[in-house]
Amino acid sequence: MTPYLLAAVEQNLIIASGVIAVSAIIFAVVLSRKLAAAPQGTEEMQRLAAAIRRGAMAFLRTEYSILVVFVIGLGAALTIFVDAGSWYEFKEILDAGQLGDLMFGRLQDGTQGGTALCFLAGAVCSVVAGFVGMRTATAANVRTTEAAKTSVSEALRIAFGSGTVMGMSVVGLGLVGVTVLTLWRGDDPNLIFGFSLGASSIALFARVGGGIFTKAADVGADLVGKLEAGIPEDDPRNPAVIADNVGDNVGDVAGMGADLFESYVGSIIAAMALGFAQATDSVGAEARSTLIVLPIVLAGIGILASIVGTFFVRAKDEHSLSAALHKGLYIASLLFAGVTALVFWLLKANGIRPDGAVYTGEWGIFYALAGGLVLGILIGKATEFYTSERMRHAQAIAAQSETGAATNIIHGLAVGMQSTAIPIILIAAAVYSAFHFAGLYGIGIAAVGMLSTLGISLAVDAYGPVADNAGGIAEMSHCPPEVRERTDALDALGNTTAAIGKGFAIGSAALTALALFFTFAKKTGIDKTGINVLEVKTFVGMLLGGMLPFLFSAMTMKAVGRAAFSMIEEVRRQFREIPGIMEGTGEPNYARCVSIATRGSLKEMIIPGLMAVVAPVAIGVTLGPNAVGGMLAGALLCSVLMAIFMANAGGAWDNAKKYIESGAHGGKGSDAHKAAVVGDTVGDPFKDTSGPSLNILIKLMSIVSLIFASMF
Amino acid sequence: MTPYLLAAVEQNLIIASGVIAVSAIIFAVVLSRKLAAAPQGTEEMQRLAAAIRRGAMAFLRTEYSILVVFVIGLGAALTIFVDAGSWYEFKEILDAGQLGDLMFGRLQDGTQGGTALCFLAGAVCSVVAGFVGMRTATAANVRTTEAAKTSVSEALRIAFGSGTVMGMSVVGLGLVGVTVLTLWRGDDPNLIFGFSLGASSIALFARVGGGIFTKAADVGADLVGKLEAGIPEDDPRNPAVIADNVGDNVGDVAGMGADLFESYVGSIIAAMALGFAQATDSVGAEARSTLIVLPIVLAGIGILASIVGTFFVRAKDEHSLSAALHKGLYIASLLFAGVTALVFWLLKANGIRPDGAVYTGEWGIFYALAGGLVLGILIGKATEFYTSERMRHAQAIAAQSETGAATNIIHGLAVGMQSTAIPIILIAAAVYSAFHFAGLYGIGIAAVGMLSTLGISLAVDAYGPVADNAGGIAEMSHCPPEVRERTDALDALGNTTAAIGKGFAIGSAALTALALFFTFAKKTGIDKTGINVLEVKTFVGMLLGGMLPFLFSAMTMKAVGRAAFSMIEEVRRQFREIPGIMEGTGEPNYARCVSIATRGSLKEMIIPGLMAVVAPVAIGVTLGPNAVGGMLAGALLCSVLMAIFMANAGGAWDNAKKYIESGAHGGKGSDAHKAAVVGDTVGDPFKDTSGPSLNILIKLMSIVSLIFASMF
Repeated sequence: MTPYLLAAVEQNLIIASGVIAVSAIIFAVVLSRKLAAAPQGTEEMQRLAAAIRRGAMAFLRTEYSILVVFVIGLGAALTIFVDAGSWYEFKEILDAGQLGDLMFGRLQDGTQGGTALCFLAGAVCSVVAGFVGMRTATAANVRTTEAAKTSVSEALRIAFGSGTVMGMSVVGLGLVGVTVLTLWRGDDPNLIFGFSLGASSIALFARVGGGIFTKAADVGADLVGKLEAGIPEDDPRNPAVIADNVGDNVGDVAGMGADLFESYVGSIIAAMALGFAQATDSVGAEARSTLIVLPIVLAGIGILASIVGTFFVRAKDEHSLSAALHKGLYIASLLFAGVTALVFWLLKANGIRPDGAVYTGEWGIFYALAGGLVLGILIGKATEFYTSERMRHAQAIAAQSETGAATNIIHGLAVGMQSTAIPIILIAAAVYSAFHFAGLYGIGIAAVGMLSTLGISLAVDAYGPVADNAGGIAEMSHCPPEVRERTDALDALGNTTAAIGKGFAIGSAALTALALFFTFAKKTGIDKTGINVLEVKTFVGMLLGGMLPFLFSAMTMKAVGRAAFSMIEEVRRQFREIPGIMEGTGEPNYARCVSIATRGSLKEMIIPGLMAVVAPVAIGVTLGPNAVGGMLAGALLCSVLMAIFMANAGGAWDNAKKYIESGAHGGKGSDAHKAAVVGDTVGDPFKDTSGPSLNILIKLMSIVSLIFASMF
Repeated sequence: MTPYLLAAVEQNLIIASGVIAVSAIIFAVVLSRKLAAAPQGTEEMQRLAAAIRRGAMAFLRTEYSILVVFVIGLGAALTIFVDAGSWYEFKEILDAGQLGDLMFGRLQDGTQGGTALCFLAGAVCSVVAGFVGMRTATAANVRTTEAAKTSVSEALRIAFGSGTVMGMSVVGLGLVGVTVLTLWRGDDPNLIFGFSLGASSIALFARVGGGIFTKAADVGADLVGKLEAGIPEDDPRNPAVIADNVGDNVGDVAGMGADLFESYVGSIIAAMALGFAQATDSVGAEARSTLIVLPIVLAGIGILASIVGTFFVRAKDEHSLSAALHKGLYIASLLFAGVTALVFWLLKANGIRPDGAVYTGEWGIFYALAGGLVLGILIGKATEFYTSERMRHAQAIAAQSETGAATNIIHGLAVGMQSTAIPIILIAAAVYSAFHFAGLYGIGIAAVGMLSTLGISLAVDAYGPVADNAGGIAEMSHCPPEVRERTDALDALGNTTAAIGKGFAIGSAALTALALFFTFAKKTGIDKTGINVLEVKTFVGMLLGGMLPFLFSAMTMKAVGRAAFSMIEEVRRQFREIPGIMEGTGEPNYARCVSIATRGSLKEMIIPGLMAVVAPVAIGVTLGPNAVGGMLAGALLCSVLMAIFMANAGGAWDNAKKYIESGAHGGKGSDAHKAAVVGDTVGDPFKDTSGPSLNILIKLMSIVSLIFASMF
């Protein structure tokens, strides 16, 4: 991976990919300006939107102020224990006045250096991507409401445009970071892993903190507002209503974005590292640089395909919304596959056989890549099958609601557990075939393939909360009913895409973590001896690793409970103490609700976050690298299973309730509906907090193990 | 393990252990006669008890009639594919008229033979133990009620006596089976594994079928009787009331007994096989037979200690009940540890160093054994900590019930997930230290140590349902209130011991399955190459194996739902159609409810049961032994975690409800109580069906892999 290994051709390919990445960012900027020019509606609408935006930005500011401490702390640990090697060596470098050289990796004595800086770069890129996404989403919501006054197709254009800004920022910043670092110091994979660690750290806090915020606000708004005070959803008299809308943004925009930014960066870097290892192991030097550069080139092609795909997302009316989004996705995927096939054909024509024909010929890598791409689509379909209200599982939960909340819950839990089967079989098949066709490198490439069209799939995903917000603003500002109908149509589709997006996020996290896991094994050299569960340390590591996702989920679920409890107290207090609040003459204190949810959720994210970082290091230092290997395997297995279980159970409960609300089993207000509301509430932390947080847990634990491996 | 390897001393030790086992059976018979002579109370009480007994026996008859088909089918598969080797070889033997010789393992040409017969013996022993336990329990319930008219100490004597009959039958039959087979054909471990497979098969159906029955009946009785018809629990007007009482017996007596019979037999056999392997690997021949005979001798000492312990279970009044049971347990444990220490000291004095000093000296095995014994006690304590209504977790769930069913459920799920941490750390520590002190053999010995005093711990466990039934009979037959108070005191303690017993069952299943897993690795020879999760087939196996417990739990939870639904329909129908039923003038059709629950539950046990047998064979045949190794590791990890999660969540919900019923948070009838009832209902299939069934799943999958290994 050293620059001198890279032929001029490869260097140029990296630069070209970097240029594509920059153009994605430019595309995002242009689109964002165009969105900013769209009309913002009435003064009341703007006032509400401004409140949501202020709340979201306040959350981000508070979150970042905590993250600064964490980033400095972890950065210092990296500088001392990874870059310098030990406290003693660090002291020497410091005394010699070479701290700057250490930070920039310019020491010539074999000391590593530079990891902390890359870590910082990764963290900053993730923060910027999240910040841009959030700013755009909170600007687009009110413009979507206004556009819905004209037509649903206009509203889709704005909402999807906002999602596209998010998607393109994520892939653009991710690929720019990777290309710059590769060109700067491609000789040291550890540096690039540092970038991935930075992305992971931010993702963890964004996902966990955002997930807790969104559910605490949701529960607070629903429980006191809807049930106790008896006012409808999105009613401006509810003090938690703005916090609830802020929650959609911090959870589903910033949290999801940071999660997928991490998967995207992690998969590319892992594939590069596995390519480097595979080249050293079994392939001649002539193919080496191809293996290393290929993931970057593929990511570049994926960005181009995604940009093209976004232009096909156009809907005439409510009925063509789903088709429009799917059209964009499929065109991007097919385009990516087609161009990639062309590239492989060209490579072959030039006599380059990147996989060294050690596996199944020159198309092996392409098959692995295609497997990942198909896996992404199929996991989404499986998620839909288990959670959609048009399918039998969610409908069965609805039917079980007739006999009360208990049977609703039992059936929902059973559906969630059952729903692990198909995705696990799909992941197993993808891993098996990727390995069959291209070895460990194939597994890295499959992850890249799955995430290649992230630019557009994230756009589809991130459009949901904007539509959700738009509906809220329409309701709160008393827009005409047809506006709400149009935003509801957008929102309903957004719920489906969000569920599919969750499946995609889990699948990509699993593949990325798996690739990082194999990279860890390669780096520590334990791939020679194997991670043998018959060895007692490895087995003990596996037991402990498997337990962590359960403990982590318990922590985040309880955190939601505590944060929600303080929200409930505050909302009750405002209803009690602010005169005229129920009559609409007294103004509720929205900002206080936002700040309570912010403080509550961010306080709660610290311990689970530290656990993810500390656990692998603690086990590595006490039991050695093989135990860490076992721990990662156990954590990976149980995290994926629990994440699917929780996400799908939550999604199915949600849609079972919606199915009843559409008129089945007595409709809204019936006993079955009341039971279904209980299920939906249980599902909230499942699908929006604990489940998604597990994606980050496994990636973060893998990357921490990888970087701190030298200490074990 | 061949007879000629065993010196006369060892042969005599085995015979002595067999004699102890027989004396346990005699002790059970004598005790059971003494119980039979106790007074049976009024005619009405006897009529109710007879109905319960008829129902329980009808369940067993139906269950056994299904099991006969299964046993014949699996026995045939064993005869053909394991004993003969293949269909072709089987055909040859059949044509030569040597089927009898094959069955009895008398063929001299190297063909194995005999496994099917041992399998049958294991199945029969398990059935007999379950049958005896059930007969005793259904005879003791009414006698306990009658004894409660005199005093609580008399009632304890009867109820605990019934548990002791069960406990002694289980350990007696188990050890008799193992000793006879060892003396007969100790040269072929596969034969003895066959015995274990027989025990496992019965256990699976007993646990799954019994678990579904008990919860279907419980839900049917509660939902229609208590909630819809508004009559109290255990009211004779409720048509499901007898089925509910039958359920306590089939689930907690027969199911639990078969489960622990399997663990007991499995742990002894696995330790013997690991001792055989360890002797071959690293220890001189002089220690070999000691390693093989030791587990049997330890089991014999454990039985003696248990018998002595039972004599110390005497209570003066309500307040000394718990102390009485604990006294018996602790005395048995200490006695076992003391006598065992003496044995080790004698071995040492005679110059025998069974562990061959390859590990940590001649006391290594003793330490491993003591670790297992302590683990059993500590896991029970951990279970109590998470589930007892006197501890903070169950109380926190009760507090969360104030805000409704949803928060009760969320908090209960979180407590269940969190509660995996301590038991997993304990298991990891026990495994680590056992291995450290005595290698893989140490892990087998730790399992033996944990189960050594099963005679008395099962007695403590099995006394609970008898006390529960006794309370039901007291209520139904309108006994004076002080009788019900006394049976309630017994029952309350029974609930605690049941929860502890569940923790113990999970822990012992985990250690037994682990020992069987290592035995599988030794037998297939993959311990040489290792079960390396970096190999793709192993990894794929691990993914699929981890998914199975989720799928299995989903199946059993849904099965409870379906069986309960048919019960609910029937109870509603009887309330509607039988004239005078609510006034107490019309007699409900109890038997019909029992037979509907029986049919419903036994039908539902077939598919999950087949899955446990078919999955390892299917993966082994398609992906090879390493994939099976990965699958077992994944299944073991996830089964243990899910079993602890489900059992403890269920126990905590149950006790949170009881805590509220004792007057907290508004007491019975309050909104918090209603919410807690929802949690309790969700917890029912968790703790009584799905959770416990996972214990069998992992043991059965391990033993199936072990026996069919030659096919992979």
